[in-house]
Amino acid sequence: MRTVSVQLGTRSYAIKIAPGLLDQLGRECAQLELGGRCAVITDANAGRHFARGALKSLAASGFTPVLISVPAGEKSKRLAIAEKCYDQLAAHRLERKSFIVALGGGVVGDLAGFVAATYLRGIPFVQVATTLLAQVDSSVGGKTGVNLRAGKNLVGVFYQPQRVLCDLDALKTLPEREYVSGLAEVIKYGIIYDAKLFAQLERGLPDLLQRNPGTLLEIIARCCEIKAEIVSQDETENGRRAILNFGHTIGHAIENSSGYGKILHGEAISMGQVAAAKISLEILGMPPGDVERIEKLFARAGLPVKLKLDVARRKKLFAAMRLDKKVSGGEIKFVLARKIGEAVRGQKVPARLIESVLA
Amino acid sequence: MRTVSVQLGTRSYAIKIAPGLLDQLGRECAQLELGGRCAVITDANAGRHFARGALKSLAASGFTPVLISVPAGEKSKRLAIAEKCYDQLAAHRLERKSFIVALGGGVVGDLAGFVAATYLRGIPFVQVATTLLAQVDSSVGGKTGVNLRAGKNLVGVFYQPQRVLCDLDALKTLPEREYVSGLAEVIKYGIIYDAKLFAQLERGLPDLLQRNPGTLLEIIARCCEIKAEIVSQDETENGRRAILNFGHTIGHAIENSSGYGKILHGEAISMGQVAAAKISLEILGMPPGDVERIEKLFARAGLPVKLKLDVARRKKLFAAMRLDKKVSGGEIKFVLARKIGEAVRGQKVPARLIESVLA
Repeated sequence: MRTVSVQLGTRSYAIKIAPGLLDQLGRECAQLELGGRCAVITDANAGRHFARGALKSLAASGFTPVLISVPAGEKSKRLAIAEKCYDQLAAHRLERKSFIVALGGGVVGDLAGFVAATYLRGIPFVQVATTLLAQVDSSVGGKTGVNLRAGKNLVGVFYQPQRVLCDLDALKTLPEREYVSGLAEVIKYGIIYDAKLFAQLERGLPDLLQRNPGTLLEIIARCCEIKAEIVSQDETENGRRAILNFGHTIGHAIENSSGYGKILHGEAISMGQVAAAKISLEILGMPPGDVERIEKLFARAGLPVKLKLDVARRKKLFAAMRLDKKVSGGEIKFVLARKIGEAVRGQKVPARLIESVLA
Repeated sequence: MRTVSVQLGTRSYAIKIAPGLLDQLGRECAQLELGGRCAVITDANAGRHFARGALKSLAASGFTPVLISVPAGEKSKRLAIAEKCYDQLAAHRLERKSFIVALGGGVVGDLAGFVAATYLRGIPFVQVATTLLAQVDSSVGGKTGVNLRAGKNLVGVFYQPQRVLCDLDALKTLPEREYVSGLAEVIKYGIIYDAKLFAQLERGLPDLLQRNPGTLLEIIARCCEIKAEIVSQDETENGRRAILNFGHTIGHAIENSSGYGKILHGEAISMGQVAAAKISLEILGMPPGDVERIEKLFARAGLPVKLKLDVARRKKLFAAMRLDKKVSGGEIKFVLARKIGEAVRGQKVPARLIESVLA
């Protein structure tokens, strides 16, 4: 077991990483001085594997859990689904001291976190992250929200969980495409923050692709540490936290213009990060060798690194990018990297250069 | 002009109270270091009278405002309407530094505040309160949100505005029923916090009913001061702030069980406060003379003090009460008053007593 602490004053919390944590859910919640009633929000995928264990563990510790299941996939991250969750919370009489357990990956965490943040103006929530993406990224840092037709995560709030449990056993049942998608965020931490981690990933990729438990424990804990460090310094993304968006401006636009769910988040930001590396070469003089290593590592992980775009789709993609939350004063600002391990935010990038890199 | 300061550390803000403030909207916003783009969210009622002036004032100070109008009435406080607002904000490319002006009464303030709190995980907003209810209550303190079918304000967040403008001229066009409804919150401050204010209202009620500008300035400023004091001590209602809910547990249930919009908020809490006073007599020994003065003042103001309930409606009302946010551990807790000027929160009230008082 590894424990990473997210330091945010009264909103601080622990991330625990270990196999078998789902069975400890009830005991973990019992440490948090929460009310007796709770709702486990999950989706069809995570629910099939983990809902029973979660409910059993909560009941064994004296809680009264109800199960709320939403359809799997990015399409559940919308207000209409949030409203269905609220209605069920109200129907089951959840109160201010009741709590929500977000059981699943990034979609469930973002949705259930948003529901927890806004039901009765905020009730506590605990994340049980069951995908690699959720364990290394989305469950940490308090970004919650839903999508609009106009773009991803355009509605939401910053709202911290009471605890995050990353059960390594959950990764065993994760489909290969989902698992690989999560590696895109893992690699990101190497590029933006930790050249040593990047080199470790280059060496250890075969172990990681085989889901070696020891490697996973070490790598996931390191990713959580990095995210916790960054978030502790800038909870609401007024500054440095933005480096976590490396590859995301283009990535979100790719997701948005392809229709949510057709392309996975990790796949989109893999392409986005490779493009951002190429832009970094032009704007910040990233060494060409680093750009090559980045492209190669994503490709070795089995992630897409190039996007073929016709004119109509490129237009759609640009429109989506202009709506990104990171747009300021009408200008598109990028997170770029000087070299592997060192990201820089707020870099203006001429539209021409983005086009040529994406061509 | 009177200025009341709400002290909340980095989230502190000023409430300004004066005639003619709408014309100063642009200048006031210019003091707040906001982005150039903004959206004025208003409803059909407030929009008819004030939208033009608001847009003109904002444009004159160099802002680029867009107008978003929602239907008038409590029915606009729901997620589907919030989503329409978000879609328009996105269509007009509002960014993180853009801001929202909530122009109207309580419904517009709660809805637009919630939209501001959640669009792009929170953008700044300024309240222009155009009803008495909004000026003395809902625009102050950062409670934002929407209703669910199951109950009022069940979804929302605490989110403070950057500034509140109470334009006394706006009250001139307010329909009598709306104006009188606002008096129910004014009287509440006397009951829960300030016996001197209560006596002043008993004496000055004729002036207030005639909307005498000098009386209004003084009374509204005092109400804002009281609310600011209470909110500064307990922003997110973990304790003392709950006294502001005097009369609201029954009041919300009356609103909910009669269908939103049929009965005004002030009318519902007038009945709720008279019932709470009668319960206070039984539980806390409120002097019978105080109960009488309370009932009499609401009646003199033209507010309803008794509700006739058939059995079916009483059942519906009780179900609605059990869902109230103030329910804890399945028990209904009330804010009561020892005497005029002194409220006490967290009082358990037997269901039997509530029934007999409402009968």
